[in-house]
Parts: sequence; structure tokens; C-alpha cells
Amino acid sequence: MTLSLYGFSGKNFGGKRVLEKGKLITFEGIDGSGKTTQIRYLDDYLRSLGFSTLYLREPGGTRIGEGIRRLLLDSRFTEMTSETELFLFEAARAQLIREIVRPALDRGVWVISDRFHDSTVAYQGYGRGLDVRLIRDLNQLAMGGTVPDLTILLELPQDTRSARLDERHEDGRSDRLDVEPDAFKQRVCQGFRAIAREEPSRVVSIRSQEEKEETARLIREQVRSRLL
Amino acid sequence: MTLSLYGFSGKNFGGKRVLEKGKLITFEGIDGSGKTTQIRYLDDYLRSLGFSTLYLREPGGTRIGEGIRRLLLDSRFTEMTSETELFLFEAARAQLIREIVRPALDRGVWVISDRFHDSTVAYQGYGRGLDVRLIRDLNQLAMGGTVPDLTILLELPQDTRSARLDERHEDGRSDRLDVEPDAFKQRVCQGFRAIAREEPSRVVSIRSQEEKEETARLIREQVRSRLL
Repeated sequence: MTLSLYGFSGKNFGGKRVLEKGKLITFEGIDGSGKTTQIRYLDDYLRSLGFSTLYLREPGGTRIGEGIRRLLLDSRFTEMTSETELFLFEAARAQLIREIVRPALDRGVWVISDRFHDSTVAYQGYGRGLDVRLIRDLNQLAMGGTVPDLTILLELPQDTRSARLDERHEDGRSDRLDVEPDAFKQRVCQGFRAIAREEPSRVVSIRSQEEKEETARLIREQVRSRLL
Repeated sequence: MTLSLYGFSGKNFGGKRVLEKGKLITFEGIDGSGKTTQIRYLDDYLRSLGFSTLYLREPGGTRIGEGIRRLLLDSRFTEMTSETELFLFEAARAQLIREIVRPALDRGVWVISDRFHDSTVAYQGYGRGLDVRLIRDLNQLAMGGTVPDLTILLELPQDTRSARLDERHEDGRSDRLDVEPDAFKQRVCQGFRAIAREEPSRVVSIRSQEEKEETARLIREQVRSRLL
């Protein structure tokens, strides 16, 4: 987590500094879609504009959330049911939003999250087959009105994605959530695309380019036109 | 947990042993209401009748659930939000039901649980003020159709209860969930009573007697008339 909660952004109105609320930007997409790299680019850009930023990852980001994250990623827990997994993600999210996200936004900080509520709809709903409508209810309870101002959905051509995932597995960097069959990941991708179609004013789908800098430029364009 | 999953109860029909499903009995009531003692009495009684029994406590009872229980009871986690707490209880419950309760019932084992879904309605709903209707939806998702055959709600006269709780605190036996003000516990008691009124065919309210054996006898009577 980037600990930069101490700066403030704001505007001067008649000599009086008025604090503007920060924005919440979430990055979504399957593992290997390049979220981490692109978050770093966007974070640099926002700072260059003078904004304070805070980078978060889901699940986790709080003391309690990191405890939950350890349960979720423990590769020994193969017996974990889909319902348990869903509730654990929502528990971590409820804590993160109230403890970190809201106070940061109120102080004018821009919050960038690596995954957020859309991942729950895509993975637990479309991927694992739990009731999507019910998941949206749980998301609402967990979020309590704090919704992303902009969501970047990163998409990769199928072949590139598989190659990146293979590299990861060779590295030994895999956990319980990583060892899912391909059909599951296909359903998750479909889920993300469905969300993007349903909420075009919040979610923008961006296909990763050959050059990472080019993808970063496309994301900056969206942030500029939608939030600045 | 009493590890007695290896016995079976059943009846003989024409020489063929037909396995009967076990029953799920839950004990509810605030801390200090005598649940542990009364569960032991009932367990002894059921075994004396030849049933195999399994004793569970909520939250916990599974490897994953015990991890969740540690998060819930950690007295350092004073920042835990009501929503987080709710989701964690449901996560532990979803795991317990699918991993332990259902397979045991299917093998003819009688399952006795120290707290179950009614505690979530009483504590998180009536106690903490979360939407009771929404909690019932979450309970339904967590339970997936596995509902107690009988719920014993243990009630104590107010003064006795306070005295027992005071003893506990002097012992140093207190955790995060234990250090709640009295008004909170009053609301929880009201919640339990409301549940008993709404579902009289499942929930029976029993007031603890001077003599523990007398309370045990009242409980046995209910089990006999309702389940045997």
C-alpha cells in the first residue's frame, strides 16, 4: 500500500481552500491482464498532476483484511466452498471501504484499487455459478454506497494471457485461486464483459496493446475525459 | 468437537437396515445462559438412547472456520465493522454446513450446535442494527436449505445472567465479542424472543431453573415430544 495519505488536493475559491473529494478508480480483469503495471503508470500520472494517491489491493488492505486474504489464498484450503469464499471477499471489502477508502476519499486522496466488487460478480457469480443478483445485494451491503467513479477493465487477447499465466506457474507463483481450469477463466471473462456492457458510464474496457506505454496512454485518456 | 461420526442409528425394516437421517438441534441464548452445560446433558441423553451425536460450536468447527473464529474473537481488532463481522459469521457457517453438518446428518448422526443462524439475527441484526431481512437472506445463502429441526432458546432471569457474566470477567475469560455494553445485550435478548415468537414450530424458549438437572429435564421433554 502506498502510504501517501498526508497530501491533499484542492482548489482555491476566493482565497479559501476548498477540499475536493478524491476519486475511486478500480482496475479489473483476470490475472495476467497487466493490472499491476498499469496501476503503476496511472499512479505516476496522477501524482505528476499533484494528486495524492492510495493504492489498494483486494482482498486485503487492512489488518483484518490481510487475515482474510491469508485464508482465501491458502492453497491447503481446497475444501473451501464457493459460498464461504464469497462471504470472505465481502468481509474484507466491508472493512477496507469503511476503514481506508472512505476516510481517504474524504481527505481528497485518489484511491486506486487492484480489483473491487466487479471481481466478485465475475469470479463468484459467472465463474462459480452463484446467483449474480444475490452477489450484487451482498456487494451493496459491503460497499454501503461507496461506488467506483471509474473502472478500467483490462482485456488481453486469449493467447497472450495464457502465455503470461504459464510463466507464472513456472515461477511457482500460484495460489488456491490460481489453479482453476480454463473454462472457469472463460466464464470470468464473459462476466467482466457483461458488467462493462451493463454499466458503460462507469466501466471502460481497454484491450492491452503490444506496448505497455500505449495501454497506459489509453487509460490516461479515459481518466482525463471522465474524471478531470 | 466430539468426534463420534463412526456410529450409526437406524431401523430394521424386513431385515434390511434403513439409515435414518440425523436431526439438527441448535442451542441459542446470550453468553452465560448455560448452553454448554445443557448441551452436555442432552448429548448424554441422546447417546443413552443409542444415537450418534456430534457437538459443534459457531463460529468454527472446521479448519477454515477456526481461522475465521480467530479473526472474530481477536480482542485487538476493535476496528472491525458490523458488516465485516456479519460476513465472517456467514462464511464460517457456509463452510461448517457443507463440510460437516450435512454429511453427518446424512450418516444418521444427530448434530447439536452451540449457536447457529438465529445468533446472527439476534446479535448482528437486533444487537448491532443491521437490516434483519438482509441477514435472513445471507443466512439462507449460507445454510442452503439446512435448517435446524429444533432450536432451544435458553433464557435466564436478568440478575442471574449478570452475575454469571461478572464471574467470567473476573476470570479474565473475555474476548472482543464479550465486552459489549448492557443495552446491546438487552437488544440481543429481545431479538431471540422475537425469533421464538415468529417460529414457534422450530424454536422453544426454556427458562433456566435453579437446578441444572431440572432445566435438562425440560429440554429432554421438548426433544422427546418434537423429534422422537
